[in-house]
Amino acid sequence: MRYKISANVIRRLPRYLRWMRFLERQQVEKISSGELAARLGVTASQIRQDFNCFGGFGQQGYGYNIHELREEMAEILGVHETLTAVVIGTGNLGRALISNFRFSEYGFRVIAAFDNQPSLIGTVINGVTVRDAGEIGDFLKNNPVDVAILTLPQSSANAAAKLAADNGVRGIWNFTGIDFDSDLGDTVVEDVHLSDSLLTLGYHLRGSQNTKEDL
Amino acid sequence: MRYKISANVIRRLPRYLRWMRFLERQQVEKISSGELAARLGVTASQIRQDFNCFGGFGQQGYGYNIHELREEMAEILGVHETLTAVVIGTGNLGRALISNFRFSEYGFRVIAAFDNQPSLIGTVINGVTVRDAGEIGDFLKNNPVDVAILTLPQSSANAAAKLAADNGVRGIWNFTGIDFDSDLGDTVVEDVHLSDSLLTLGYHLRGSQNTKEDL
Repeated sequence: MRYKISANVIRRLPRYLRWMRFLERQQVEKISSGELAARLGVTASQIRQDFNCFGGFGQQGYGYNIHELREEMAEILGVHETLTAVVIGTGNLGRALISNFRFSEYGFRVIAAFDNQPSLIGTVINGVTVRDAGEIGDFLKNNPVDVAILTLPQSSANAAAKLAADNGVRGIWNFTGIDFDSDLGDTVVEDVHLSDSLLTLGYHLRGSQNTKEDL
Repeated sequence: MRYKISANVIRRLPRYLRWMRFLERQQVEKISSGELAARLGVTASQIRQDFNCFGGFGQQGYGYNIHELREEMAEILGVHETLTAVVIGTGNLGRALISNFRFSEYGFRVIAAFDNQPSLIGTVINGVTVRDAGEIGDFLKNNPVDVAILTLPQSSANAAAKLAADNGVRGIWNFTGIDFDSDLGDTVVEDVHLSDSLLTLGYHLRGSQNTKEDL
């Protein structure tokens, strides 16, 4: 069954799942919305409201069962259903993801990687072979791929996104910092803008510095 | 001067700045809140409300001056004021950041990197020397460092965060996926949870798949 969940709640779900997994590893069995709120830095009423969106799991004055909650969230997020992915661009960032990111924990499997550097083509990273970027179109036609992970230079980002979308890729995980200007049809784009995160941190540090000077 | 801006608006500022820079590169001079809203996928009223928080810049029926807006946002975010950073952990991800991330565009300068692998110590990445991780404490005592960028394995993440905070580092840009459980005092932590982003993408793809099956 699928729940009807707002985009904002969906944005928060991965974070809830992350905390449920963490608490489960700490062998915590139950938690109240108040305690959970304190750990996550949100309000207890937001947590209750969010959890109600997909069926509750809590009893008044008793708390949430962490194992059940974790199972249910993993189910809603669909992590038991494996999606296939390819990595386009195997510079440091592409290699970092293939080597260290725990795709299987999130229901993804990287089945190929591509680069246009002759020195990289044919190498194997964590069991994934790097193929010639010129073969992307053919590969996508012959293999069902759900997600293209773009970790290539900005100058080639739009073309790679278009190529992926035109060849049936349903989602793009975009690390290039480019907002695509091509028509990608129904392909869903999830942008990772690391700079937004760093600027937010910088804002807080510069602010606190100014505050000190103002004293 | 500092404006009093809510945390939610601050979260959106880097994105506005990114778009202003993009539009400026495209040589767009003015944009209405409606056009900007369409590009950013938010409502025009949200944009007007956000921009009003720090002084307006728009004239009714005339639109926003992109150059002014970009300058003002850069000013609020403080990108002209350089903060120093060190990278702790120079595996693929640390190297990717030092090599490719445009720190200077966001007002940051990486002044050192650290690792505990003898084969990496002494190497130079994009002008930054990799030092022995055993020297982190001394380095921080002798050099004012604003931000520690943590790109090391999870098993060492808490200890590194504590060491940085205890030695005057004011902010941590955390790529380890760990939520720190140590007391870091006033040190501000900005977490990068790539898995949250991938899970959100997965949710949308799995949802649309199910919808198709339901038809």
